[in-house]
Amino acid sequence: MKRVRLGLLGVGTVGRGVVDVLNRNGDEILRRTGYEVIVSAASARNLENASQFLGPAVKLHKDPLDVVKDENVDIVIELMGGITTARAVIEEAISAKKPVVTANKALIAEYGNDLFSRANAAGSIIAYEAAVAGGIPIIKSLREGLTANRIESVAGIVNGTTNFILSEMRDKGLSFEEALADAQRLGYAEADPTSDVEGLDAGQKLAIIASLAFGIRIQPERVHCEGITNLTESDLRAAEDFGYQVKLLAITKKRSNGFELRVHPTLVPAKCVIASVDGPMNAVLVNSDALGQTLYYGAGAGAEPTASAVIADIVDVIRLSNADKQAHVPHFAFQPDNLSDHPILDMGEVESSYYLRALVRDEPGVLSDISGILADYEVSIEAMRQRESDADTEGVDIVIFTHKTKESSINAALAKITELDAIYETPSRLRIELL
Amino acid sequence: MKRVRLGLLGVGTVGRGVVDVLNRNGDEILRRTGYEVIVSAASARNLENASQFLGPAVKLHKDPLDVVKDENVDIVIELMGGITTARAVIEEAISAKKPVVTANKALIAEYGNDLFSRANAAGSIIAYEAAVAGGIPIIKSLREGLTANRIESVAGIVNGTTNFILSEMRDKGLSFEEALADAQRLGYAEADPTSDVEGLDAGQKLAIIASLAFGIRIQPERVHCEGITNLTESDLRAAEDFGYQVKLLAITKKRSNGFELRVHPTLVPAKCVIASVDGPMNAVLVNSDALGQTLYYGAGAGAEPTASAVIADIVDVIRLSNADKQAHVPHFAFQPDNLSDHPILDMGEVESSYYLRALVRDEPGVLSDISGILADYEVSIEAMRQRESDADTEGVDIVIFTHKTKESSINAALAKITELDAIYETPSRLRIELL
Repeated sequence: MKRVRLGLLGVGTVGRGVVDVLNRNGDEILRRTGYEVIVSAASARNLENASQFLGPAVKLHKDPLDVVKDENVDIVIELMGGITTARAVIEEAISAKKPVVTANKALIAEYGNDLFSRANAAGSIIAYEAAVAGGIPIIKSLREGLTANRIESVAGIVNGTTNFILSEMRDKGLSFEEALADAQRLGYAEADPTSDVEGLDAGQKLAIIASLAFGIRIQPERVHCEGITNLTESDLRAAEDFGYQVKLLAITKKRSNGFELRVHPTLVPAKCVIASVDGPMNAVLVNSDALGQTLYYGAGAGAEPTASAVIADIVDVIRLSNADKQAHVPHFAFQPDNLSDHPILDMGEVESSYYLRALVRDEPGVLSDISGILADYEVSIEAMRQRESDADTEGVDIVIFTHKTKESSINAALAKITELDAIYETPSRLRIELL
Repeated sequence: MKRVRLGLLGVGTVGRGVVDVLNRNGDEILRRTGYEVIVSAASARNLENASQFLGPAVKLHKDPLDVVKDENVDIVIELMGGITTARAVIEEAISAKKPVVTANKALIAEYGNDLFSRANAAGSIIAYEAAVAGGIPIIKSLREGLTANRIESVAGIVNGTTNFILSEMRDKGLSFEEALADAQRLGYAEADPTSDVEGLDAGQKLAIIASLAFGIRIQPERVHCEGITNLTESDLRAAEDFGYQVKLLAITKKRSNGFELRVHPTLVPAKCVIASVDGPMNAVLVNSDALGQTLYYGAGAGAEPTASAVIADIVDVIRLSNADKQAHVPHFAFQPDNLSDHPILDMGEVESSYYLRALVRDEPGVLSDISGILADYEVSIEAMRQRESDADTEGVDIVIFTHKTKESSINAALAKITELDAIYETPSRLRIELL
């Protein structure tokens, strides 16, 4: 039996989850790996609380850098969150030739390119399964399980908060604000929910996923992020009436001239598997040429699901720590000297089918005006239906499903349609993915 | 760039899939791994056909053992199927210290215990991702992604043929025989469909899955297999009426006194993710203590999906071939000296909720007789409902949902119920999993 000693940076929710799972399942992990995994040193914001939780056997350091330098630490586990200190600590670990396991999605999204280069140069490993979709082994699947494939697209529900809110809105007929309040009460949403509900969290995860799928640099600044704050119950209901569910999807696609990178509420057919992913759960759907469609479903957050991913990474790192560099899976899934420099497409270049809903005056000529404008911008209509609008509003709902068209065309057409006299309010526009 | 040379045993559907994917995606695989992967030697039933397909650069051998011995072969790819020769060839490869990748589920189910022991003793690797659920990286996920977890249960749709048949029966109102004929016409079922429709194929896969989940020896002979041949449209419809879908599930659960290992048609709630897995697709649902529920969905068969798994294994093997044994993931997911010898439970010991449907004479006292017998055997009723039976039959349908009870109790009660005068035919009995 060998013993592997962890240096734990951060003893918050996830840090405690890791310690709890190691304590509870240490025997099972030993049965699997042949290694005893223990925490030998740690740092925390509140040293007293951490000391009470970790017990006297764990050496506590005020400065996280001292955990990295501690000679009784073999692997550095970065669970502090934040950017500046976490980055400095990981750089120090690379210099000290100690492998790093991190759950820090924001750090990897923003500085992963640089950190991976440094780790590659040093022959070291940064493992980050926990940074995307919590405990679901999606990074392992993309980097290793699908290695034979040319990946064509990935579409994921990678933010549990917004998926919970959307499920609540649909199931209970709540407004966004009401469902958000529920999510906050139940601990699924933070006091400041901006990063979740505006799609920024999903955007960071998408930037990492796209990098792994296509072998491109991580480019969070190039992700188009639209959140769910403007979604109305009327749109959710209309979508359902026509056989769709609305999900906040993080989508990346390979196109001949570049890559699409976008997060937005999306209509998906109610019959497809990802449409049945409800509540705070996550799922990632991958389309690839040999394997076809695969989907990975599970808890995208929470102390123990995240700990599950952190410990899986720890075991991988242990297995490979004495192997030569050839045995490492490349950080980006692709060889660092073989990344693609195809561009990320501007949002106007993105192609999609669209759902449009407009509340219009119930009078002759409106349909013909709208369809005329769409034709002017070469937007082809798949179906156009009238729908009873909500009882307390005047007018009728026109719902239009378009064929695939460019985002720039639909936006231009919509601007014209909004100017029509017969339109009561700015029409809704949602993208559709048939998946 | 390094070059890795494969010895391909079998140039049938899957073998050709592997060659096609390597030819088409060789550049992408090189981008990922830094290796060029080529087929250098092969054996096949029909050498002439194989030669035409593979071209002159591949050395063909009549005897598969000569492929293993070929000094230009680094890794042996066993895609012949069958047991006797495949086993001999893999044993030879182990002796020759050449890693093996195989898609041979029947061989691994029957002789995996022995082959893995030999490979462990020799420090060699047998990789077999393609043996279960085709291209879905479920073996990697169980062995590596979930390593921190105590796995509690696994329930999978691991046979695409039967899932396709069940979807057809439900969607088109076909009988089993009609749907089977469709499946055969479309190439989803073989001329002799016994292994699929009787649940034997799923049973072999389940034996492998359970071994990986719990660290037990592979015991296909201890799997209780019930197929779908006796399923009626009436039961599918009744299940749907009450909010369930019927799926052929391969289920393994850890209980305090042993493990359940069973394949049978199962009612699952229509709202859960696995219920939406239709057509020939596969999905495996894992319940584990830290991560909770995860699901892995994709194509469970077909040339290229299987090739995807075979090539992923090849890349793993390449990565680890120069690393020491410590870097290998154990064949069983657990250390070979640390397997559990907890028993597989007899089917009578299995606990489940049940759906019962009986066509009965429409007269007073019948319900009371049935519920009296269930009470005698301590089967507790959750719901009992009357349902219009099919137009062309006499009597009424009684549908009963029970609480969790032992299989032996329900069987004994059902034998008594069947003896009642008011019962027209042997009642249906299906197990329920809430998942």
